[in-house]
Amino acid sequence: MHSLEPLFFPASVALIGASSDPERIGGRPLRFMLEAGFQGRLYPVNRSGAQEIQGIKAYASVLDIPDAVEHAIIAVPVPGVEAALRECAQKGVRVVQVFTAGFGEMGAEGMALQNRLVAICQEAGMRMVGPNALGLLNPSTRFFATFSTALNGLQPRSGVIGLATQSGAFGSATYGMATLRGIGLSRVIATGNEADVDVAECIDYLAQDPETRVICAALEACKDGHRLRSALKKAAAAGKPVVLMKIGSTDVGAAAAATHTGSLAGNDAVYDAVFAECGAHRAASLEEMLDIAQLCAVLGHLPPNEQIGIMTGSGGIGILMADNATESALSLPPLDAGTQASLRELLPYAVPANPFDTTAQVTAVPDGIARTIELMLSPEAPYGTLFAYLAHVGLSPQRFQATEQRLIEIRRANSQRALVVVMLSEAGVTERLGAAGIPVFGDPTRAVRAIAGAARMARLRQQMQAAVDSPIALATDPLPRVETEAQAKALLSQAGIPVLPEKTCTSAAEAVAAARAMGLPVVAKIVSADIPHKTEVGGVMLGLDSDEAVAAAYDTLLSRARTHAPAARLDGVLIAPMVRDGVETIIGVHQDPVFGPMMMFGLGGTTVELYRDVAFASAPLSDAQALRLIDSVRASALLKGWRGAAPGDLPALSEALKRLSEFAVRYADQLAGIDINPFVVRAQGGVCLDALISIR
Amino acid sequence: MHSLEPLFFPASVALIGASSDPERIGGRPLRFMLEAGFQGRLYPVNRSGAQEIQGIKAYASVLDIPDAVEHAIIAVPVPGVEAALRECAQKGVRVVQVFTAGFGEMGAEGMALQNRLVAICQEAGMRMVGPNALGLLNPSTRFFATFSTALNGLQPRSGVIGLATQSGAFGSATYGMATLRGIGLSRVIATGNEADVDVAECIDYLAQDPETRVICAALEACKDGHRLRSALKKAAAAGKPVVLMKIGSTDVGAAAAATHTGSLAGNDAVYDAVFAECGAHRAASLEEMLDIAQLCAVLGHLPPNEQIGIMTGSGGIGILMADNATESALSLPPLDAGTQASLRELLPYAVPANPFDTTAQVTAVPDGIARTIELMLSPEAPYGTLFAYLAHVGLSPQRFQATEQRLIEIRRANSQRALVVVMLSEAGVTERLGAAGIPVFGDPTRAVRAIAGAARMARLRQQMQAAVDSPIALATDPLPRVETEAQAKALLSQAGIPVLPEKTCTSAAEAVAAARAMGLPVVAKIVSADIPHKTEVGGVMLGLDSDEAVAAAYDTLLSRARTHAPAARLDGVLIAPMVRDGVETIIGVHQDPVFGPMMMFGLGGTTVELYRDVAFASAPLSDAQALRLIDSVRASALLKGWRGAAPGDLPALSEALKRLSEFAVRYADQLAGIDINPFVVRAQGGVCLDALISIR
Repeated sequence: MHSLEPLFFPASVALIGASSDPERIGGRPLRFMLEAGFQGRLYPVNRSGAQEIQGIKAYASVLDIPDAVEHAIIAVPVPGVEAALRECAQKGVRVVQVFTAGFGEMGAEGMALQNRLVAICQEAGMRMVGPNALGLLNPSTRFFATFSTALNGLQPRSGVIGLATQSGAFGSATYGMATLRGIGLSRVIATGNEADVDVAECIDYLAQDPETRVICAALEACKDGHRLRSALKKAAAAGKPVVLMKIGSTDVGAAAAATHTGSLAGNDAVYDAVFAECGAHRAASLEEMLDIAQLCAVLGHLPPNEQIGIMTGSGGIGILMADNATESALSLPPLDAGTQASLRELLPYAVPANPFDTTAQVTAVPDGIARTIELMLSPEAPYGTLFAYLAHVGLSPQRFQATEQRLIEIRRANSQRALVVVMLSEAGVTERLGAAGIPVFGDPTRAVRAIAGAARMARLRQQMQAAVDSPIALATDPLPRVETEAQAKALLSQAGIPVLPEKTCTSAAEAVAAARAMGLPVVAKIVSADIPHKTEVGGVMLGLDSDEAVAAAYDTLLSRARTHAPAARLDGVLIAPMVRDGVETIIGVHQDPVFGPMMMFGLGGTTVELYRDVAFASAPLSDAQALRLIDSVRASALLKGWRGAAPGDLPALSEALKRLSEFAVRYADQLAGIDINPFVVRAQGGVCLDALISIR
Repeated sequence: MHSLEPLFFPASVALIGASSDPERIGGRPLRFMLEAGFQGRLYPVNRSGAQEIQGIKAYASVLDIPDAVEHAIIAVPVPGVEAALRECAQKGVRVVQVFTAGFGEMGAEGMALQNRLVAICQEAGMRMVGPNALGLLNPSTRFFATFSTALNGLQPRSGVIGLATQSGAFGSATYGMATLRGIGLSRVIATGNEADVDVAECIDYLAQDPETRVICAALEACKDGHRLRSALKKAAAAGKPVVLMKIGSTDVGAAAAATHTGSLAGNDAVYDAVFAECGAHRAASLEEMLDIAQLCAVLGHLPPNEQIGIMTGSGGIGILMADNATESALSLPPLDAGTQASLRELLPYAVPANPFDTTAQVTAVPDGIARTIELMLSPEAPYGTLFAYLAHVGLSPQRFQATEQRLIEIRRANSQRALVVVMLSEAGVTERLGAAGIPVFGDPTRAVRAIAGAARMARLRQQMQAAVDSPIALATDPLPRVETEAQAKALLSQAGIPVLPEKTCTSAAEAVAAARAMGLPVVAKIVSADIPHKTEVGGVMLGLDSDEAVAAAYDTLLSRARTHAPAARLDGVLIAPMVRDGVETIIGVHQDPVFGPMMMFGLGGTTVELYRDVAFASAPLSDAQALRLIDSVRASALLKGWRGAAPGDLPALSEALKRLSEFAVRYADQLAGIDINPFVVRAQGGVCLDALISIR
């Protein structure tokens, strides 16, 4: 049994701090459950010694209850919380919800109090939600263990969508919007300060909860990246769609600032990557979260691909939906020739394109709408989703009755593909179609965007299935000191990243000899642990194409370094072959404090800074993951034969990403970050031209 | 009186092709109006000679009606339309709606028929909507002159939003969604084939219609750019917000393909620019269109600026809304110090930041919510819009009653700023607040996005007011033939665009002399009207830094040209100074077939192609418009001191844009397009390095 089971399915519940006033925090849960008819045993507890509270026999202490208590709610003022919790521990309570606020959210003193609560729970093997929690709902048993006033106006409807949020207000808002829309919920929980139970663990619970088939969640911060990843993967493995909101910017902490990669990792790029890798959809608004969750709940599965067909009686709406689909990365392939021929036979005046505009004349053909939809869902048709735009016919249920029945039959015969109806309709029509697995949307654009989110989730999950976990052990050898470019490149070379045959020279003569050995022209750079940003002091000279030029550059670089940084230790001058072909890329490693080593990829030039055109992925990377990381950067078009240029060696690039990712995992506990900038991708191979490694 | 007035306010209406069957196209308008109680005179007309139709006295011809007829609806089969229209002309009908389809939308033959209808109308001075029109609605007089089945399920509600669409299905969809949401409409019209009346003219009508205060419209194609611009400007001048949808891609036609600028102008960039210049908002979905229209209708004005404040009882929702606002280009300035002090006094435990999280404790302070809102709207506060997130209190109208009254008072005292409430609420609460000018949204993200759209519209309109129209006359002199780069630059130089002191040379010796005169290094380019793409034949050589190099380049270029294009006429070799500083930009002119000369601006490199980071604006440009065009390109950050580089000479760039725009207007009837690529912006000045001019 999952350790959170008594949270949602307790046989007996104590309400510590229960109030006779049904409007007070301590009174509301009791009122909600009495009104709703919760069937478990309820024990109000109040130190006042009242004989009964809201008509139920009350106790002065949880210890006085002549029965086992599985679930306790603590809603007493801060000074009494610790004692109440100790009594729960003594009583053998399994799970506790602490509604009382004034702990970790109030600064150091509150955090110390909160840590004492955690210690009590750990010692007793008791689980805790909160403190500062708003409570939870289990509509299927009418267990309404919350003081949320959202229940004053709205009775929850039982359903298949589970909801876990950190913030109570966020939970109430989602609960309220869902319930107003008639969406049924399986479980709802707000985790508050998350001193023990967090949203990730609730997702883990919902992933194995048989009544929950779709999971919604909202996080403000994640403390345990491993737990979140593992819960999301469990949900994906169980075939349950997960729609998440992550609110606010990431605090990447001090370690991140060490590299350029780290600074780009702020602002949620890492969360985006982790969610995608775990097959979850990140929603940007409450409405989007509910749209996709409801779509998935009605469908009962995800769309099998990202190809859509559109059947419409209105050319304009068809074009609008096609525009929306293209923006959302859905594709609109044409129908197969056979189906086109059948459609021509059915509707001779219409051109069987996609979108397929039947025009209003389809209504003159007996069973025309249903037969058109049936044909467009024929086995040869490529569409994972077919949209049928039916205007406002759902507002005339009688006129729609025959078509409604036919749609339900067609859906039954196409249980793996999605048939989505876009129309204005009465609630009854929407409900009947929904029960048959046919989602109905009023707004065409929202319909397309919801399918796009769900279909993308399906693709992400197919990619997850193809991925093989090959765990890499942490290295036990300490990394050497890495203070200069030469040292960084030496280490990367050991990690399998191609570098140039370079040499750190300590005299002009040595520099000339090195340049001759590698072939002119060459590049010369100052080597000093005290000058990390070489270009700022003029410490790099390019295109040296003669002995004289090399010798002169040696002297110039030393003198510039002495002028600009008189105290700098100078190791000499690095001589390297000059690379003039290829495309510059940036490869980075960011040691995320929550999610561990993350790989970053972007193109050189202005694309990273100006357009934030970079992507992140968890290390280690497989070949396929490395190629996907590259592809997810828009500017990677420059590597694929841009405007007639020779294509870059993508296998060499992905190999470098993969090797660096393995290195990043092996030394995850020692590395703070790595920037390879640039890594030049050539027609044959690729090479690191400059690198910075930051050790913790 | 506006010539479309009898469309919406006829005293007498003939229905030609009226049917006794209330379900048929010819029967529905009559049924709708009889059911709704239209007060004008209705005259059914049917050749059958029926005495009455749906209980109303009928006539065999419109000529038999013993009364003047202002408005006629023609709903007879195609073969009878022309005769019916002639009879209307003879009868002196003012406006005709032709519902019958099968004209211009069906190809050349249908178009010929349609043109005959237009000729009849023109001769008679009669206005025509359609053919292939769905009809119109005037809810205030119950004039329902349409056969849209959307009226079967939904009775229109009278209001202040006017709606004009080309597509009938689009109009029905918008009407249906609006009516289901309880949004009131002033006029609704679908223009069909637009043989005469188009959406632009309907916007012009709505702009002067006193009952219409907000305008919604949807276009698929615009035939008359001048009319659309002028209608949109009239609406802006009348202070009426306009929210538009433009569906599908632009067909830019043959002229456009002549230049790179032309190819970038496809895909709606020109529509985006024109709508913005005319102070209209372009919506991407029906729902967005209605959200913004309803917001504006409730407010009665646009938000005065793009600065917002957020008051919330939930930290999480506040962060979500702040994220949404930042994405939508709204800003969240802090409160002034005085108001902060007052808020600290009112709610000592809360930090008066923006978003201002009152926490749930605000409910413990008497009148706490209203007093907080009042303070955040104090005269010193910078917010054009204040959002108040009130969770779900609107679902408990009794609890909310006192606050509701206070909000209405506060709004009354702040009639120029927007107070937007975000909460779940009952229809009655939403309605009462709406009537008092306070919009209520359920979804926080939609609230923020709607305000962002409306506030941007306000900014665009402020910019319009600052703009001064200085008409430029068409030039009468013919442009010379422009076949080579040298000729193009000579013409641009006359137009006031800086070019380099270049020389077309016909011998190596002349080239060397020219290079010496301008100073080394130089660039050499082949000059030939038959080689427009010089780089493809190796026709450009850079960095020539000696007499020998210049002389050799001359010979090399001629020989390359002879090898790659043996038949090409060769004018010689262009010698020009080599420019190595500055930032490359692209300036273009696109002669749009609908909207006339449009200016294009983008940066060099990959930003234009890869990220479509270009912007368009109508010619001619003022200084301010030129600077805004530059600013609207994201990559223009590269011109403003990017990463420590010297900033570019923006005044020189905007001067070049302005001069080229004036040239484009002066020769609008002769030019097909211009590409200046690159125009190099230097620390001092700017210069055109290459140009292509395409003459019609």
